[in-house]
Amino acid sequence: MSKGFMLVCDGSNGAGKTTVIKGIEAHLQSKGYEVVLTREPGGTEIGEKIREVILDPSTPQMSDMTELMLFGAARAQHIVEKIKPALDAGKIVISDRFDAATFSFQHYARGIDLETIKTINDLALSGFKPDLNIILDLDPKVGLQRVQQRGEGMDRLEVEKLDFLNRAREGYLAQAAAEPEIFTVIDASFSKDEVLQRCLNAVDNLFEKV
Amino acid sequence: MSKGFMLVCDGSNGAGKTTVIKGIEAHLQSKGYEVVLTREPGGTEIGEKIREVILDPSTPQMSDMTELMLFGAARAQHIVEKIKPALDAGKIVISDRFDAATFSFQHYARGIDLETIKTINDLALSGFKPDLNIILDLDPKVGLQRVQQRGEGMDRLEVEKLDFLNRAREGYLAQAAAEPEIFTVIDASFSKDEVLQRCLNAVDNLFEKV
Repeated sequence: MSKGFMLVCDGSNGAGKTTVIKGIEAHLQSKGYEVVLTREPGGTEIGEKIREVILDPSTPQMSDMTELMLFGAARAQHIVEKIKPALDAGKIVISDRFDAATFSFQHYARGIDLETIKTINDLALSGFKPDLNIILDLDPKVGLQRVQQRGEGMDRLEVEKLDFLNRAREGYLAQAAAEPEIFTVIDASFSKDEVLQRCLNAVDNLFEKV
Repeated sequence: MSKGFMLVCDGSNGAGKTTVIKGIEAHLQSKGYEVVLTREPGGTEIGEKIREVILDPSTPQMSDMTELMLFGAARAQHIVEKIKPALDAGKIVISDRFDAATFSFQHYARGIDLETIKTINDLALSGFKPDLNIILDLDPKVGLQRVQQRGEGMDRLEVEKLDFLNRAREGYLAQAAAEPEIFTVIDASFSKDEVLQRCLNAVDNLFEKV
């Protein structure tokens, strides 16, 4: 295999992304693949600095356009510096969130015009696309309860209201319906084991196809 | 006067921007105007954090697109949070650099395609334009000598090579030639007093026109 694959694990907060990512990593490593874990916003030294700016709860005055361009800036760096080199070396990249999250949160939830987001995202991606987006789908009310049970502090985006999170969820489902060839939706209300097993099946399907 | 003015002081490093800005501020204050000094990248709490990321000398691997979007992100915040409210309150805003610098450094010097920069800049500006860009024009070799004489450390952009700075200079002159109604070029090789006087004349001309 001369080129790797890029998998994205995305969806509501509290839907179990972290567990799924670790499970897929172990599964692929056991098959002999080299796996690179990463996340958005972030994934590079520059991207992680941008992440701090984006998620800082002390600056709620951030404009929509500023937020959008910060995501774009971090993504451009992420692709050039980390994702493409790993894929070129035949590795599997698994990212905790990627561009589907931008469309869900910034367009569907926050209402920024779709063309603007597409323009900035296309410039950041410069033709790149992940091979598979796994969307962990969960009622945001349940997701928030899980996050609160973990007792973690909430960042600037996590404190958004429930109807905002519901619109983001609809955004993920809409994107998955529009591009079924690179999206798969997994019902995250099942047990952790069941959710992970369904994700592993989706990954195995992708690898069999190639 | 129901609406303020925005002046930009731009040009080569070492051309005397700081002296000119302070001089224009004092001049306008003596005429009874309220003046707000600001700078790019930066000017807001969020923008200053973005500035730190942009200028950090420890990350030379920053991609062109990342840099461009960071400038855009900071500019969008600058306009919404600081510039427009000040202008609406009838104040005079003087910014140390603004969007002409992006075109000079990112397009003319670094070679990023003009349409890409225009796309991102237009999204950041959303229709806004400064009333006057004062370009302090100086041979970059002389500018660098002045910066070195001040004994300051150099940031990531200041350590660029001389031909890069020469291309940026040509970029300022090209923009000024294309939009003479909002640009004025001041020869910064003269004495500080002479340069400031020429800048004050340009500002007074602008105010007389309205």
